[in-house]
Amino acid sequence: MASTTNHTPPLLDLTIDNITENVVRINSQSSNARLNYLMERLVTHVHDFARETRLSTHEWMATIEFLTKTGQMCTDVRQEFILLSDILGLSMLVDSIDHPKPPNCTEGSVLGPFHTGDAPHLPIGSSMSTDAAGEPMLALCTVSDSSGRPISGVKVDIWETDSSGHYDVQYANRESPSERCIMTSDVDGGFWFKAIKPVSYPIPDDGPVGKLLQLLNRHCWRPSHMHFMFEKQGLDPLITTLFIRGDKYETSDVVFGVKSSLIIDLGKVDEETATKYGVPVGALLLRHKFVLASTEETEKLRDKNAMEAMERLGLKTKLIDHLPVPDLD
Amino acid sequence: MASTTNHTPPLLDLTIDNITENVVRINSQSSNARLNYLMERLVTHVHDFARETRLSTHEWMATIEFLTKTGQMCTDVRQEFILLSDILGLSMLVDSIDHPKPPNCTEGSVLGPFHTGDAPHLPIGSSMSTDAAGEPMLALCTVSDSSGRPISGVKVDIWETDSSGHYDVQYANRESPSERCIMTSDVDGGFWFKAIKPVSYPIPDDGPVGKLLQLLNRHCWRPSHMHFMFEKQGLDPLITTLFIRGDKYETSDVVFGVKSSLIIDLGKVDEETATKYGVPVGALLLRHKFVLASTEETEKLRDKNAMEAMERLGLKTKLIDHLPVPDLD
Repeated sequence: MASTTNHTPPLLDLTIDNITENVVRINSQSSNARLNYLMERLVTHVHDFARETRLSTHEWMATIEFLTKTGQMCTDVRQEFILLSDILGLSMLVDSIDHPKPPNCTEGSVLGPFHTGDAPHLPIGSSMSTDAAGEPMLALCTVSDSSGRPISGVKVDIWETDSSGHYDVQYANRESPSERCIMTSDVDGGFWFKAIKPVSYPIPDDGPVGKLLQLLNRHCWRPSHMHFMFEKQGLDPLITTLFIRGDKYETSDVVFGVKSSLIIDLGKVDEETATKYGVPVGALLLRHKFVLASTEETEKLRDKNAMEAMERLGLKTKLIDHLPVPDLD
Repeated sequence: MASTTNHTPPLLDLTIDNITENVVRINSQSSNARLNYLMERLVTHVHDFARETRLSTHEWMATIEFLTKTGQMCTDVRQEFILLSDILGLSMLVDSIDHPKPPNCTEGSVLGPFHTGDAPHLPIGSSMSTDAAGEPMLALCTVSDSSGRPISGVKVDIWETDSSGHYDVQYANRESPSERCIMTSDVDGGFWFKAIKPVSYPIPDDGPVGKLLQLLNRHCWRPSHMHFMFEKQGLDPLITTLFIRGDKYETSDVVFGVKSSLIIDLGKVDEETATKYGVPVGALLLRHKFVLASTEETEKLRDKNAMEAMERLGLKTKLIDHLPVPDLD
């Protein structure tokens, strides 16, 4: 298309001190006020970063190479940029901003790079694991709203690693999904399934992000956990994780995802439960009540938090589609 | 390697308000003070960006996808991340920071994504163009130091597009380099060559960066120019560009590279010059004197600028290897 525009401001003789305002100006020509705001903040922060660090050409080139390798490490089943966002705490921060939780609702956690779109829909009571080496675990869960009313028909996406700490997509010869499934909550808001006890595992450390962690003298481990994602019209989508108490990485999760309220104790299946659910007596038992916020509850809270934060930052903004843009009125 | 460290600070229950200090803390464990400083500033800016914009999960995911595509658009001969850095003004900013010029030295400009490592070394007087459709141009240049003394033995890397505005690497069937060469300045600091008149051209707009420019309602043109890179032991490397005066994109270069001192007027070859250099009378003539700073001059100036900038920003830093790190003494 290579079209020209008539309203380009003259840009010439840009220096360390005047380049930012000029780049911001030329990036403010869209009719999308939100895009203009995002670009203004992005350019300001990127330039400030370079000025505050006196970024060298050598460091700049190393960054270009790092980003290139990160993109090229991504495949249909591996997302290295999400991993980067995770280890920088950005993923958790964005989730906290976009999905604030009203009191008593289940808190969120990172999506992580291993959610896939191809998990099989399984009937309640199924086993989501095919790993015979894993420690059998029965999960009995419910979904309710913030007033305690059960919610039926919620789509629940569940995924975990196998007993060796690998997701199915980490195997080159993966033919079909395993250790993952989608269930739908029943009329009482219940869903239950057979799985294996989660184990702690290192995030993939054979790519650029793994190398960065090494340089930073950081470990690459996540405490043992199981992922859950909940969706239903009218509910704010919940992406969360349950962590097994006592894991040695509980307070040093490489992606910053652990919250006290998400750490759970596993019980043991008693005789009655064993008979009822068809599992061995003494098998591990995960019981959890998930509490979901409505879209309306979350939007109200998000808007309130946003306006308060903007005020604290001294920024004069208004919300359009629940997202801040400069208020020029 | 997936090793653990013993000095990880406990990280749990991170919120919008406390996550940044904790991520900074865990990223400050390297023995490389410069890396710690870069990470601290990076994480602070990335998190501030998310907080100031109340970045949504949807926007975050769009960014992940954008970065992934940008990495995957890169090849051995196309660098889409440099292009992104260029259109955000970051490349020019970093060059200005890392290669400040003492008075009367030739100013720098963007490297751009099309420099290659395989340009042929040609003897002085050669033609660097194989494009018969281009307008012939004779270039007569010299290199001197800031006191006006000629510098011999400078490696000069020169590259331009063909007459249609494409670099050789933009052709799928490129077999060997064209419209580029490397020369070495002679005992009088001189080098001369035959080329074609540069033309304005759009930067590659078929990738993620081109799509971003469209969204921003920006054009993707560069004014007509020729690239030069100078290297010799003891000299600060100079990456610069000469622009032909009067181009319609002179004040709106998509990568912000134009400086008044780099805009030149082309002359015409007179009879004497034509005879001396073996070109037709009336051919276009580019004459330029490049003035290069020494490594010492540039380092001194860079250090001075850095310390003054840090002071203005209220940051207590010292320089190690000419780059700032926090001064904790």
